[in-house]
Amino acid sequence: MKKVAVIMGSDSDLPIVEKALAELKAYGVPSVCHVMSAHRTPQIACEFAANAKKEGFGVLICAAGMAAHLAGVMAGHTTLPVIGIPCKSSNLDGMDALLATVQMPPGIPVATVAINGAKNAALLAIQMLALSDETLAAKLESEKQAMIAGVMQKDAALQEKLAALQQQP
Amino acid sequence: MKKVAVIMGSDSDLPIVEKALAELKAYGVPSVCHVMSAHRTPQIACEFAANAKKEGFGVLICAAGMAAHLAGVMAGHTTLPVIGIPCKSSNLDGMDALLATVQMPPGIPVATVAINGAKNAALLAIQMLALSDETLAAKLESEKQAMIAGVMQKDAALQEKLAALQQQP
Amino acid sequence: MKKVAVIMGSDSDLPIVEKALAELKAYGVPSVCHVMSAHRTPQIACEFAANAKKEGFGVLICAAGMAAHLAGVMAGHTTLPVIGIPCKSSNLDGMDALLATVQMPPGIPVATVAINGAKNAALLAIQMLALSDETLAAKLESEKQAMIAGVMQKDAALQEKLAALQQQP
Amino acid sequence: MKKVAVIMGSDSDLPIVEKALAELKAYGVPSVCHVMSAHRTPQIACEFAANAKKEGFGVLICAAGMAAHLAGVMAGHTTLPVIGIPCKSSNLDGMDALLATVQMPPGIPVATVAINGAKNAALLAIQMLALSDETLAAKLESEKQAMIAGVMQKDAALQEKLAALQQQP
Amino acid sequence: MKKVAVIMGSDSDLPIVEKALAELKAYGVPSVCHVMSAHRTPQIACEFAANAKKEGFGVLICAAGMAAHLAGVMAGHTTLPVIGIPCKSSNLDGMDALLATVQMPPGIPVATVAINGAKNAALLAIQMLALSDETLAAKLESEKQAMIAGVMQKDAALQEKLAALQQQP
Amino acid sequence: MKKVAVIMGSDSDLPIVEKALAELKAYGVPSVCHVMSAHRTPQIACEFAANAKKEGFGVLICAAGMAAHLAGVMAGHTTLPVIGIPCKSSNLDGMDALLATVQMPPGIPVATVAINGAKNAALLAIQMLALSDETLAAKLESEKQAMIAGVMQKDAALQEKLAALQQQP
Amino acid sequence: MKKVAVIMGSDSDLPIVEKALAELKAYGVPSVCHVMSAHRTPQIACEFAANAKKEGFGVLICAAGMAAHLAGVMAGHTTLPVIGIPCKSSNLDGMDALLATVQMPPGIPVATVAINGAKNAALLAIQMLALSDETLAAKLESEKQAMIAGVMQKDAALQEKLAALQQQP
Amino acid sequence: MKKVAVIMGSDSDLPIVEKALAELKAYGVPSVCHVMSAHRTPQIACEFAANAKKEGFGVLICAAGMAAHLAGVMAGHTTLPVIGIPCKSSNLDGMDALLATVQMPPGIPVATVAINGAKNAALLAIQMLALSDETLAAKLESEKQAMIAGVMQKDAALQEKLAALQQQP
Repeated sequence: MKKVAVIMGSDSDLPIVEKALAELKAYGVPSVCHVMSAHRTPQIACEFAANAKKEGFGVLICAAGMAAHLAGVMAGHTTLPVIGIPCKSSNLDGMDALLATVQMPPGIPVATVAINGAKNAALLAIQMLALSDETLAAKLESEKQAMIAGVMQKDAALQEKLAALQQQP
Repeated sequence: MKKVAVIMGSDSDLPIVEKALAELKAYGVPSVCHVMSAHRTPQIACEFAANAKKEGFGVLICAAGMAAHLAGVMAGHTTLPVIGIPCKSSNLDGMDALLATVQMPPGIPVATVAINGAKNAALLAIQMLALSDETLAAKLESEKQAMIAGVMQKDAALQEKLAALQQQP
Repeated sequence: MKKVAVIMGSDSDLPIVEKALAELKAYGVPSVCHVMSAHRTPQIACEFAANAKKEGFGVLICAAGMAAHLAGVMAGHTTLPVIGIPCKSSNLDGMDALLATVQMPPGIPVATVAINGAKNAALLAIQMLALSDETLAAKLESEKQAMIAGVMQKDAALQEKLAALQQQP
Repeated sequence: MKKVAVIMGSDSDLPIVEKALAELKAYGVPSVCHVMSAHRTPQIACEFAANAKKEGFGVLICAAGMAAHLAGVMAGHTTLPVIGIPCKSSNLDGMDALLATVQMPPGIPVATVAINGAKNAALLAIQMLALSDETLAAKLESEKQAMIAGVMQKDAALQEKLAALQQQP
Repeated sequence: MKKVAVIMGSDSDLPIVEKALAELKAYGVPSVCHVMSAHRTPQIACEFAANAKKEGFGVLICAAGMAAHLAGVMAGHTTLPVIGIPCKSSNLDGMDALLATVQMPPGIPVATVAINGAKNAALLAIQMLALSDETLAAKLESEKQAMIAGVMQKDAALQEKLAALQQQP
Repeated sequence: MKKVAVIMGSDSDLPIVEKALAELKAYGVPSVCHVMSAHRTPQIACEFAANAKKEGFGVLICAAGMAAHLAGVMAGHTTLPVIGIPCKSSNLDGMDALLATVQMPPGIPVATVAINGAKNAALLAIQMLALSDETLAAKLESEKQAMIAGVMQKDAALQEKLAALQQQP
Repeated sequence: MKKVAVIMGSDSDLPIVEKALAELKAYGVPSVCHVMSAHRTPQIACEFAANAKKEGFGVLICAAGMAAHLAGVMAGHTTLPVIGIPCKSSNLDGMDALLATVQMPPGIPVATVAINGAKNAALLAIQMLALSDETLAAKLESEKQAMIAGVMQKDAALQEKLAALQQQP
Repeated sequence: MKKVAVIMGSDSDLPIVEKALAELKAYGVPSVCHVMSAHRTPQIACEFAANAKKEGFGVLICAAGMAAHLAGVMAGHTTLPVIGIPCKSSNLDGMDALLATVQMPPGIPVATVAINGAKNAALLAIQMLALSDETLAAKLESEKQAMIAGVMQKDAALQEKLAALQQQP
């Protein structure tokens, strides 16, 4: 199976990125995780992206904040799909990272997820890999059913809670 | 090869969506295009998404404006990757569609591209399909080289233009 | 009397939604409350909306955050009035939910209230039901008078407080 | 049948408001339309709102731009449901009117629709009146079906157009 | 001397408004302070504004949050200058109140200060009254000099602090 | 009577500023108008502000766009009330000028009006001068009555227009 | 003298960038101008930046729109000062380019000017070079005086225009 | 060597500004630091800027919040390069200071860095001085290498951490 690379611009983004790693692990998708910066270690980042395909990677997930260039820069060096996670930093509530990630010019797409949306970034990578992996596709389907059951269970718990409240004076 | 479905919320989005169709055609990726609305024809849209995998689709591209729900709704009914194109409408400069498309809750990803970014939506779909199609992967690589040559040509034209200007008194 | 359904996209929205439930109870309007998601349990949500009228509901109140599609999706499946409460989540201060709720396309209205404005959502539902229920209308009128008295009382308390402050050296 | 009042803050809003009047007329709902300003003719506006219920009105629709106070001010003088249409003016793309209309404090709801969303304001008013008028409810239902047919027709037209294009060299 | 009225939309705004009251007191300008709401006690607010001139008021200061209509509504009922303080509430960081206060239509001005800018609201009122009161004008001038001295003192303290830091190893 | 100075940062702002000049002229308030820039002719601007009071000015109106510093800078050099008109320029829809004008720090107020709100700036200046000029106060009052009549006339015209429309088939 | 490089992400930015070239030429500062893209020709751009110092460049000016990564990417490959011009593109009014240019992480500064602010980018580069070039510094000073004279001339023209208007009936 | 002046609008900005002072000290660049306000001590600020060049300063760094005029005002009085740090204050998340600093009109540039970006402001000043100081230029280069090593070290630490995690059951 092709691997997923999860790259973050700063090791302070680890608490966000961990959700992506956990999701990939739960699906049994092999992954690596690195700190690489579009600005501080640009050559390392660019080389990683340029070599990713022949190193066996299928998808690159890039998490960065502020003027988040990481996903866009890596997308400039590969034809693999690149997923961008805009990270919220101390100012502007993540809007800077969102616009710097999603507003890519024609020719160089970045598949952008929600601000701090690491779990969805991983799911999206898995959906891409599942296009040619029926086991993975089946697992995505069964997880979707489990999610439905989960919401239904929460609704059932809510009904009990509300019923209990109603019996109070 | 798996097909790509390009769905738009309103037929007024066709001028945007055409760029995606052209790109898919240029890569030889089979596609269909439909008008379906998350709000006006929800059942048709949901059934399309629910059946997309078994109908031979690999990726869904959804273009919508304003409170753009189309991509998110279709993503709720499939485990195929869904790409969202936020369309600019007459007010708020596309910001409403961008936020309504990208800020998806955990569990239901939408791969969002730039406002009106139809060409990139198609490229992203092609990158996904290329994960298991080396011919497509090679074509993406050669187009990337052509893109480099294109920018270099524009730079060369600029140098000529500037040189001509400099010779003027 | 017709019932009001209060639907939330996630059970984490309960602290907001409780204010709507309390208001409906204070007016004696029968209500139910459910967790249903436009993305995670779309079929359940759509069926609920589609059957709401014949199940005796008059108004649907939908609370959701981020790319809040719940109100819009339910509005696509019913001709009952749907009220949307955009919920603030951890990023963007509720602006994403506001735009995703209010910017509905022509043909599918959602009556949007303020971010986290659950009390007003309930009041709006009650005002709608009061159009054909004079008892409810009278209660709305008397509550409006009570609200006036409440503000006047707060002003009187303020005058005492300010007078006490002025007598201090 | 109860009447709907459509009030605009300035006669320059008429091109927007006309879509609401047309929709109300199409459903056979009696309506009046007035220019009244929360700032320039506050007493006229407040008296209209205060007397609206006893004059036979069921719903008030208020359209205003900039620091749009009209809907909120009228809602302060009535317990009828008030629908607000934020109108786009020459600056800020309607965001000022949207926030000034939707962010109402607890106790005084305004049912807000999209920027310039006059058709939906009318539909929302009709949905409210239909709560106690089965003829109106049936008409809403049949229009919803017609809307579905309309989208399907547009999709059929698109298929023809695309097929024609494909036959071109 | 003409009085200044400081009106707030909710008694929860008192911590902000107190800075205006303190400033007015420091300048010896007589003031009153009330809780009045454009939405909850509109008649009281409108009557206060309409009678303010003949009751001896010269300036009205209005503080409100969310869809802040208070200043605009009072400005609709008086020809006295009205100063608006947009108050920050729990969402949108005060932007809603700022736009709802400042974007007044032609004919009804509101002199808007910064979000939560109560001290400046009071100073602005004092500057207006000082146009015909030389004692007040002189006090404004001497306070301006004191402010300069205050900043210079802070700079001197900073120089000492930095010098001490530089002597550390 | 004290004079009003209308200062603009660039002569390209004249089409906006003319509305203020016309309003001042209509009320018989003496005014001057100058091009002065906080950035390009800072000394001229500062000296004008510093001397304004002794030169017989009562109020300064400052119109500027982009990072609009003119009003704030002049307010730093005078204790006269300063009114700021944020001007819309080619980008950001006037939001930059609005924030740069209204968000003044404690101690230096600027009375901010709407984006391009020149007429209201003049009216606000007139209201300030009217605090000690009963003739001006009376004229403001009569204009307010005329404004009411104007809106009523527009409403009457609307009624005729609608009636005519209704008689059409 | 050190040279200034003016790089634009797309040749469609030339109308903006020309103002920088003209300013540099007016000051006699040698410059080159190229089309290079952080995304489409990343290697060319990075190598240019990496070699700029030894090729005799002193300052790099980078103009780009949308998710403008050009300035940040080049700053990652050089220790020369990099000036960023955020370019307005068809959506979001330049806000995306502004945030993507200015919000750089610690360690990699980009000196950002206003949206489309090409003239100021050139002036800033000239100010930097003038730090060690007294002729340039003197020219900056004389241009500043000329700018003052220019504004004074415009004011004089305005006075004539206003005087002429006043003599009209 | 030319000195760098670090000016802040209020001594409450010291925690931000200290990062600039530390960076300048680490590079051995002489600096002074002052509290000066564009609004409260405008004459002191303007004189400082006007005399800065002949007092031996090469670059001015100005930090201010809200309607941040400090950098722009000082840039109006000098031809030295001026760097602006927009400071986040209690409302609007720093957006007001960013726009008030960066959106300067043609002719008066301010080199703007990220919100609270004091370290980058210092680095930018050092880069400017290094244009004519090879020792400084070499130190910038070696620090850039150290930064690369720092990121690589963090990545190595991450690999150890992830390996340890993987060995856990």
